[in-house]
Amino acid sequence: MKIGIDIMGGDFAPEEAIKGVLAYLASHSDSGIGVHFVLIGSPDIAAPYLSLLDGYQSHFTLVPAATVIDMHEHPTKALKEKQDSSIAIGFGLLQMGKIDAFFSAGNTGAMLVGAMYTVKAIPGVLRPTIASPIPKLDGKFNFLLDVGANADCKPEHLVQFAVMGSLYAKHVLKLENPRVGLLNLGEEEGKGNILAQTTYPLLKQHSGINFKGNVEGRDLFLDNCDVIVCEGFTGNIALKVAESIYNIFTDSRKIQDEFLDQFNYEIYGGTPILGVNAPVLIGHGISNARAFKSSIESAINLVESNFTNILKESFAENSSGAA
Amino acid sequence: MKIGIDIMGGDFAPEEAIKGVLAYLASHSDSGIGVHFVLIGSPDIAAPYLSLLDGYQSHFTLVPAATVIDMHEHPTKALKEKQDSSIAIGFGLLQMGKIDAFFSAGNTGAMLVGAMYTVKAIPGVLRPTIASPIPKLDGKFNFLLDVGANADCKPEHLVQFAVMGSLYAKHVLKLENPRVGLLNLGEEEGKGNILAQTTYPLLKQHSGINFKGNVEGRDLFLDNCDVIVCEGFTGNIALKVAESIYNIFTDSRKIQDEFLDQFNYEIYGGTPILGVNAPVLIGHGISNARAFKSSIESAINLVESNFTNILKESFAENSSGAA
Repeated sequence: MKIGIDIMGGDFAPEEAIKGVLAYLASHSDSGIGVHFVLIGSPDIAAPYLSLLDGYQSHFTLVPAATVIDMHEHPTKALKEKQDSSIAIGFGLLQMGKIDAFFSAGNTGAMLVGAMYTVKAIPGVLRPTIASPIPKLDGKFNFLLDVGANADCKPEHLVQFAVMGSLYAKHVLKLENPRVGLLNLGEEEGKGNILAQTTYPLLKQHSGINFKGNVEGRDLFLDNCDVIVCEGFTGNIALKVAESIYNIFTDSRKIQDEFLDQFNYEIYGGTPILGVNAPVLIGHGISNARAFKSSIESAINLVESNFTNILKESFAENSSGAA
Repeated sequence: MKIGIDIMGGDFAPEEAIKGVLAYLASHSDSGIGVHFVLIGSPDIAAPYLSLLDGYQSHFTLVPAATVIDMHEHPTKALKEKQDSSIAIGFGLLQMGKIDAFFSAGNTGAMLVGAMYTVKAIPGVLRPTIASPIPKLDGKFNFLLDVGANADCKPEHLVQFAVMGSLYAKHVLKLENPRVGLLNLGEEEGKGNILAQTTYPLLKQHSGINFKGNVEGRDLFLDNCDVIVCEGFTGNIALKVAESIYNIFTDSRKIQDEFLDQFNYEIYGGTPILGVNAPVLIGHGISNARAFKSSIESAINLVESNFTNILKESFAENSSGAA
């Protein structure tokens, strides 16, 4: 398996990216490493850190990329103009099948646009989506989607998010018969904005998912379902509120708590773009070595579970997917 | 000043409602009590608790109400059919000017519908709104609106929320030149769903508010603005995520923290319906005596600040309001 990593992406690249790769390699015996890393970035900038990987020479290849798409560049414009950037080259490798998954902690928009225009949406998938785990009090996670790729959605998009989220929960997270909740402002059927009101009956009648009804903001951290669907505007805000809890209580309030530790994004690292023809994962801009290592594990998991093919088959059988 | 209280509303009514009134009265010297309470509810059910107010007979009147609108009844239907309910009678008193403000911890929908159909929206106000304080790390509060009254909004609604929220922050919360933020999934202008993208320039060009641009989910607890506007779907979910933090970390995780204590709704009690022709406040269904006392204080504050007239004048001068 070949995992492509944009070592120029993120605030602490390339140092933390390379240290993340090292952390992954160091945690496995030489024969236990079933992955070859394709590190994409500037050889000059990476040089001081690449020596950290001495001893693991056979486990990685450096693919040179002359430029980087900065965090605040316009995604479409940057991808078009910077074809020698680490993200553009990464997608090129993925499209040609030279890597099996691609991860970057760089410009999220560029990763989304790159995924849409190179590996492209799986036939039948209307809107690829970004999902994020949200820690639950019982130690497990809710899988929230969409968290920002699709700010305006139609009911049929949310139905597909439910299907893709269910398939991910089942095949990648290994949850049996994952429960789907519709994020809403009230529990009862009929509550909500027009989108939620219209989506509810579609989810209810969908035979391919285990729909449990509406869930509210207060259910985000509870074990009332496994997959929570919403449009990306609300999902992004709910996610960022949840993420800020960790910073506020850990950093500002100096609270130590096991549940709070689960909010640390470093432990789950990258989040997948679901619905495109190859495994693509996006990381936090502030990713450190631990987050890179977690993201590598997520990428391997995604490839090993054969998730892309599972999605393809599901949407080939049925235009609304079958979880 | 006469404050009307639905003593039948809420999970712990009438006991906690009456104990809340008692707590308010007991915290003031007899001559310092500038308010007369109009308690609305069933004399029979309230009887065992009314004796708690012995010694304060001159400070309250009981107005009998034969029925109660339950928490899960359909608001419009219930208000129509139960004209002898504590909520219906409360709105009748408010409409006739027999009370200066009305508070209930009962059926939120019925309170909203009652406010809209009896005291009605202030001329020029397109959509009355519910706002909620959100604690900030610096000990102050962000004022978030709408939090659920208006699940689907147009840009002009959000502009009015910004105006009403600014006026409330200025005149009731006594903040000078309150800063307005638009809740969004990114900081830059142009980010967001169609609603946020369209609302941004309207807020930017509005001379009556101090617009500071977009704020994200992670800004909810920070001091980057004072008033945060959004449609009621996202606002409700953000609020409930925030509220659940208190329950999760205090009750389930047994964490003691001063900032966390600020999330306890009991300290700020009821939340006003902004934009109707008289002060109306809604409380949490789980309101206890402390929450009732806080709500009484909020109601008094709202009446004393003459907020309803300030709103009326603002919207009379200018159809989009002038903060």
